[in-house]
Amino acid sequence: MKKKKPNKLKILNDPIYGFIQIPNSLIFDIIEHPYFQRLRRITQMGFSNLVYPGANHTRFHHAIGCMHLMQKAVQVLRFKQVDISEDEENALYIAILLHDIGHGAFSHALEHSIVDGISHEEISLKFMRKLNDEFDKKLSLAITIFEGKNPRKFLYQLISSQLDIDRLDYLKRDSFYTGVTEGNISSDRLIAMMNVINDELVIEQKGIYSVEKFLIARRLMYWQVYLHKTGLVAENMLVKVLKRAKELAEKGEKLFSSTSLNYFLSTKISKTNFNDKTLEMFSKLDDYDVLLSIKEWTHHQDKVLSLLSKMIVNRKLFRIEIQNNKFDKQYISKKTDTISERFGLNKTESSFFVFSDIIINQAYNSNKPIYILNKKGKIEDIVNASDQLNLQALTNPVIKHFICYPK
Amino acid sequence: MKKKKPNKLKILNDPIYGFIQIPNSLIFDIIEHPYFQRLRRITQMGFSNLVYPGANHTRFHHAIGCMHLMQKAVQVLRFKQVDISEDEENALYIAILLHDIGHGAFSHALEHSIVDGISHEEISLKFMRKLNDEFDKKLSLAITIFEGKNPRKFLYQLISSQLDIDRLDYLKRDSFYTGVTEGNISSDRLIAMMNVINDELVIEQKGIYSVEKFLIARRLMYWQVYLHKTGLVAENMLVKVLKRAKELAEKGEKLFSSTSLNYFLSTKISKTNFNDKTLEMFSKLDDYDVLLSIKEWTHHQDKVLSLLSKMIVNRKLFRIEIQNNKFDKQYISKKTDTISERFGLNKTESSFFVFSDIIINQAYNSNKPIYILNKKGKIEDIVNASDQLNLQALTNPVIKHFICYPK
Amino acid sequence: MKKKKPNKLKILNDPIYGFIQIPNSLIFDIIEHPYFQRLRRITQMGFSNLVYPGANHTRFHHAIGCMHLMQKAVQVLRFKQVDISEDEENALYIAILLHDIGHGAFSHALEHSIVDGISHEEISLKFMRKLNDEFDKKLSLAITIFEGKNPRKFLYQLISSQLDIDRLDYLKRDSFYTGVTEGNISSDRLIAMMNVINDELVIEQKGIYSVEKFLIARRLMYWQVYLHKTGLVAENMLVKVLKRAKELAEKGEKLFSSTSLNYFLSTKISKTNFNDKTLEMFSKLDDYDVLLSIKEWTHHQDKVLSLLSKMIVNRKLFRIEIQNNKFDKQYISKKTDTISERFGLNKTESSFFVFSDIIINQAYNSNKPIYILNKKGKIEDIVNASDQLNLQALTNPVIKHFICYPK
Amino acid sequence: MKKKKPNKLKILNDPIYGFIQIPNSLIFDIIEHPYFQRLRRITQMGFSNLVYPGANHTRFHHAIGCMHLMQKAVQVLRFKQVDISEDEENALYIAILLHDIGHGAFSHALEHSIVDGISHEEISLKFMRKLNDEFDKKLSLAITIFEGKNPRKFLYQLISSQLDIDRLDYLKRDSFYTGVTEGNISSDRLIAMMNVINDELVIEQKGIYSVEKFLIARRLMYWQVYLHKTGLVAENMLVKVLKRAKELAEKGEKLFSSTSLNYFLSTKISKTNFNDKTLEMFSKLDDYDVLLSIKEWTHHQDKVLSLLSKMIVNRKLFRIEIQNNKFDKQYISKKTDTISERFGLNKTESSFFVFSDIIINQAYNSNKPIYILNKKGKIEDIVNASDQLNLQALTNPVIKHFICYPK
Repeated sequence: MKKKKPNKLKILNDPIYGFIQIPNSLIFDIIEHPYFQRLRRITQMGFSNLVYPGANHTRFHHAIGCMHLMQKAVQVLRFKQVDISEDEENALYIAILLHDIGHGAFSHALEHSIVDGISHEEISLKFMRKLNDEFDKKLSLAITIFEGKNPRKFLYQLISSQLDIDRLDYLKRDSFYTGVTEGNISSDRLIAMMNVINDELVIEQKGIYSVEKFLIARRLMYWQVYLHKTGLVAENMLVKVLKRAKELAEKGEKLFSSTSLNYFLSTKISKTNFNDKTLEMFSKLDDYDVLLSIKEWTHHQDKVLSLLSKMIVNRKLFRIEIQNNKFDKQYISKKTDTISERFGLNKTESSFFVFSDIIINQAYNSNKPIYILNKKGKIEDIVNASDQLNLQALTNPVIKHFICYPK
Repeated sequence: MKKKKPNKLKILNDPIYGFIQIPNSLIFDIIEHPYFQRLRRITQMGFSNLVYPGANHTRFHHAIGCMHLMQKAVQVLRFKQVDISEDEENALYIAILLHDIGHGAFSHALEHSIVDGISHEEISLKFMRKLNDEFDKKLSLAITIFEGKNPRKFLYQLISSQLDIDRLDYLKRDSFYTGVTEGNISSDRLIAMMNVINDELVIEQKGIYSVEKFLIARRLMYWQVYLHKTGLVAENMLVKVLKRAKELAEKGEKLFSSTSLNYFLSTKISKTNFNDKTLEMFSKLDDYDVLLSIKEWTHHQDKVLSLLSKMIVNRKLFRIEIQNNKFDKQYISKKTDTISERFGLNKTESSFFVFSDIIINQAYNSNKPIYILNKKGKIEDIVNASDQLNLQALTNPVIKHFICYPK
Repeated sequence: MKKKKPNKLKILNDPIYGFIQIPNSLIFDIIEHPYFQRLRRITQMGFSNLVYPGANHTRFHHAIGCMHLMQKAVQVLRFKQVDISEDEENALYIAILLHDIGHGAFSHALEHSIVDGISHEEISLKFMRKLNDEFDKKLSLAITIFEGKNPRKFLYQLISSQLDIDRLDYLKRDSFYTGVTEGNISSDRLIAMMNVINDELVIEQKGIYSVEKFLIARRLMYWQVYLHKTGLVAENMLVKVLKRAKELAEKGEKLFSSTSLNYFLSTKISKTNFNDKTLEMFSKLDDYDVLLSIKEWTHHQDKVLSLLSKMIVNRKLFRIEIQNNKFDKQYISKKTDTISERFGLNKTESSFFVFSDIIINQAYNSNKPIYILNKKGKIEDIVNASDQLNLQALTNPVIKHFICYPK
Repeated sequence: MKKKKPNKLKILNDPIYGFIQIPNSLIFDIIEHPYFQRLRRITQMGFSNLVYPGANHTRFHHAIGCMHLMQKAVQVLRFKQVDISEDEENALYIAILLHDIGHGAFSHALEHSIVDGISHEEISLKFMRKLNDEFDKKLSLAITIFEGKNPRKFLYQLISSQLDIDRLDYLKRDSFYTGVTEGNISSDRLIAMMNVINDELVIEQKGIYSVEKFLIARRLMYWQVYLHKTGLVAENMLVKVLKRAKELAEKGEKLFSSTSLNYFLSTKISKTNFNDKTLEMFSKLDDYDVLLSIKEWTHHQDKVLSLLSKMIVNRKLFRIEIQNNKFDKQYISKKTDTISERFGLNKTESSFFVFSDIIINQAYNSNKPIYILNKKGKIEDIVNASDQLNLQALTNPVIKHFICYPK
């Protein structure tokens, strides 16, 4: 009976790719592990579904989708005589499956409030090591690749680079579920044009327009979707409400929360004290802990907490203004005064309702170039290879300033 | 500023239909209401995402999608000279938007555990009446239609019949998000072939094959998706865990839960005592209350509760057997004995782990026929109109028996 | 240089499947052969584009698509431990690529007018044998399979049966290009459920609803698309105009035509005298020969020929009436008289303008059953395996009568 | 009966947009006219189907698709309070339907061989005027708009500008049928963001990324699809074969051709002598005349004509080299010598087999800017409005040189 189990689930449906095949039983078992199953309860795009109601896809599905694209990449590269051993192949699948396993509930919001000072990549690595122990060290090669320590650079570049499998799936998937068809990219074609020269991942010359389009599509997704005003506001309000809750918890105030959320609210977590128990607690924390708590906080006696919570739950979101220059201090303080008076809050409390920050997007990072393999067999940065489009301009980070306050 | 608000949100993205337009500010305000926003936190397909990982779409999106299709239907019917007043049009949009607002968390599971004895349609009606009070009686006509009390039958049939707008959206939507392309139906074509004869909704003759295909697609979706073994098991386990929690709560045992879930666990709700407070509590209950509580119950001292909870959260689901005949009592009691011994449970406790039930699907209900308008201008039941396919057979309900128990 | 050529074209774009890979250079060379390239100039659906303007896809693309699905089928079956040698695999690709190579211009129309008495399958076989000579007998196994002479029945069933790869592609493709989404089938899923038991192609139990849906979709496509009134009329008018042209040519009248069309108009071709020259001429005949000739015939002095030609070119198509019973002789002769008088034609001439015939469709042929592999490992006809839907009814051929005459 | 006709065809299927509605009977009658029906026999992308086998869509379907998008544009603009009268609306539909009616067989190829010196726009205008006479001057306003003579500039800009309805359909359609998904644009979104300020067509601020993506997608389609090596070679070979045929015809040599092709081969057509008869002949000339003639010319005694024809029909296309600089004269003459010797051709004859030319693409033309309506209500050229992407670079035409010769 036991043996048959993997078979049953060997194939998963994906609205985007059709069928996804689970290649072997080790991978099947990793997917079945509670650590990985947790990803079913973390949405890929956080509060973006407040703007794009179709965007409820999970990190689970994204990770599975990445594994599928990785299978295609391996197939294409082998077809082009790139030598990839069975162990390396397997390690690629594991590494891409687990690359985001360290993401917290509502992804980035959590990183900026309750688990500060440690990146999700570092947490992913902790999970991988834990799993490696459980699975008889079968994840060792995957970990080496994930850490960028394997001499064959392209293995790492498939996992993490400006044209990695992660991006090829998430841009396609996010575009699909939001309905923003303009962000759609041709993952298939980009993969079909991959090659490896001196252990470096490259794109063949004829793929140059596809890469350009990929960069432009990604840029569009950033400004139109990921940094969409409404989603941005909601995410910032989430950060604020969690910060407030943490303040209250640290002061010893009672507030509704699940066991694991409570752990993170009442404990200061830093790189140095992130231990096994922290990992275990982290592995139980997902969107449900956060959102239900916020729902309950709507009744809390702390005005800041309850007000913010109500606004989030009932989607009465702050107004946001965005501009290229920094907001004038006077403007901010005038806003703060108004709010302070309107809601009867003191200065500190008001800072949860009126705040200013920046958003940054760099469309292309020339430190880790996307390489084009030209017809003469040489490789060059896409920025130089492109015949006309001034991609150099995309390397300048775009910075915008915003201010939020209640409507 | 106030005035501009509706404008901003006039258009919603839908991966299926492209853009959905919100027709006016009354409808916009209904959508903004917390009662309706709650639907963002209730998935359309409950635990089906354990089988089809893409199926995380919400009742919110389904309701919005229905409104969109209703706009198309009104357009088509008016084009065919069917008289529909502006008030009726608006009422249709409101009625279809709110038709499912009474659905509880995880939809059907809740109806069979903690809010027994009152259907979601009845609760929808309670919500509509409450909203009607809030919105200056502007929902009155919508309510009359929803109750089937309007003399123009087709208005009701667009909301609720065997070929209503509800089904036209959910079959298409569920097929889309699960990736089960075979369940895809051509809502557009079916709507394009709608007409009204003597206030009765009919499908024009040339649409006969489309209706047949619609019935077959729906039947396929039932057996392949809605009643998929794994989803079925998970839903039944959910019912059991909630029943156990209710038992414990009624006995006065402490157990983690949100305010509103706690209300329903500790109160016996019947048709007669479902009052305003109940409605308010219900309006705050969604998937997050249920799932987070289950996560917490994994640590509860009650063995039944914690065991079931762990199995659900970590996706260690029961085995299920399905057959055409009733399961033998002896077979069931043998299974119960095994489980009882294996987990150290008494008889009553074991009944949460080994249980048998039936599933029923009737592909076509001849009491509320789908009418075909034939070339001679007469209307007849699709069962008689179809030239060959024996649709009569589809009127017999298919009943299957199943038994569940831990693997 | 020679060696590199195959590489260049190894991948073809398909709007339906994405990328299609050409597996090896033998297959590449067969595709490059003028016999196969001719299929680029023959539309898959003949005059259906007069109803569905998107339906301009060619037999070339269909054949390539079939090869792609066959690659998937081989992969699935091998995954299930079905032994398929490399030679058999290759033969399957060749056989499916060439299964329709004997189709004439405008497909079926030609078979009923100028190349009577020999089926397109027989002509396909002639082409295969000719190619076999050119390609050093490398097509021998493919031919054996195509003829149904290979002992492993499933190889033949993949090429020709009620659930063959041919149908899996053409239903999907025709539905895609016409925009009749209801005819869409899930080729992927059906292939994923294929298996082989005792050399017999079977579908696994859980695929039963997919097969049902496939049969219903096919039936819908027949009545809604393939036998659509307008397409039917156009095709019949095409048969008539070609018959008239042949009559005139046989009488020695001069009329515009290409070399190869002229050959078929002026020569009586039967099974016995279909020789190498006939094949050569046939290999040069495509939609372009036929349609341009009809365009020129609009100026011909023969009234029947020019009138019919004008009506076709300018899309002034006949009216068609369809009913379940035979048309009354008197009704037909009355129509004939009217037309005869209106256009000044004698009796014989009028028969090109008023004619009656039948259309038949059998949705399921129980002589070559689709086998379902049930859970007990036994195989049974889908008609018996289906739990409810009365598929037996689908075995009765539906016959309809029609009459055509100018509007 | 007459009245009912339009009804029958009121709705057309489109794989891209679903259903397309024909708005009224005047438009229906224009579509039914033989001039317009001719577009059914002219493919949109000429010989691109030799590279992308799915690209067999016709100018007929493109024109119908444009009309559909124009309906959406009118709806959007009116929703934004832009005043468009019913007459203007109708004129827009007619103008966009007929904007390409002057395209010859295989589109551009013909313009460069047998109907030199007169653009397809000029011929379109001739057709419109002829139709205007036939339809009681009901096309007058459409013609004024098409000629750019209407004072309301945006009407013309919808028909012809850098973001006109024509491009919104053809980029989407060509991308769809070729399967080059990267060229897909979001016509819906772009239209949703259209507005009119001072009779000027503008795109609202938030659409800026969509416009950028549109420009990049178009650029990609040019280099990857429209100027794809293989398609380019085939089109150039077509130009050559037609030029040769014209030479022979002018010398009085007999060669197979249809009546209308013969007219153009044997007559020198210039702007001054393009009369009513020319128009009538042109209205009968389509892809079928050209391709069938080439098929027949494979047997012609003129070596150049027959050799080129065979190469085209059997897809034995020339090799092409592309580079940024002009090809060296010596290189060309060396190639010519080789070919001359290999095929036994004299110098003049060889020039049909070895030739060099340029291709140009300008991604953005700053003389007719795309205007963005910024938040302050001012309009500015997208080149200035874009925050980062250096669109200025796109205004420089890219010029590439190519040389072709037999493999």
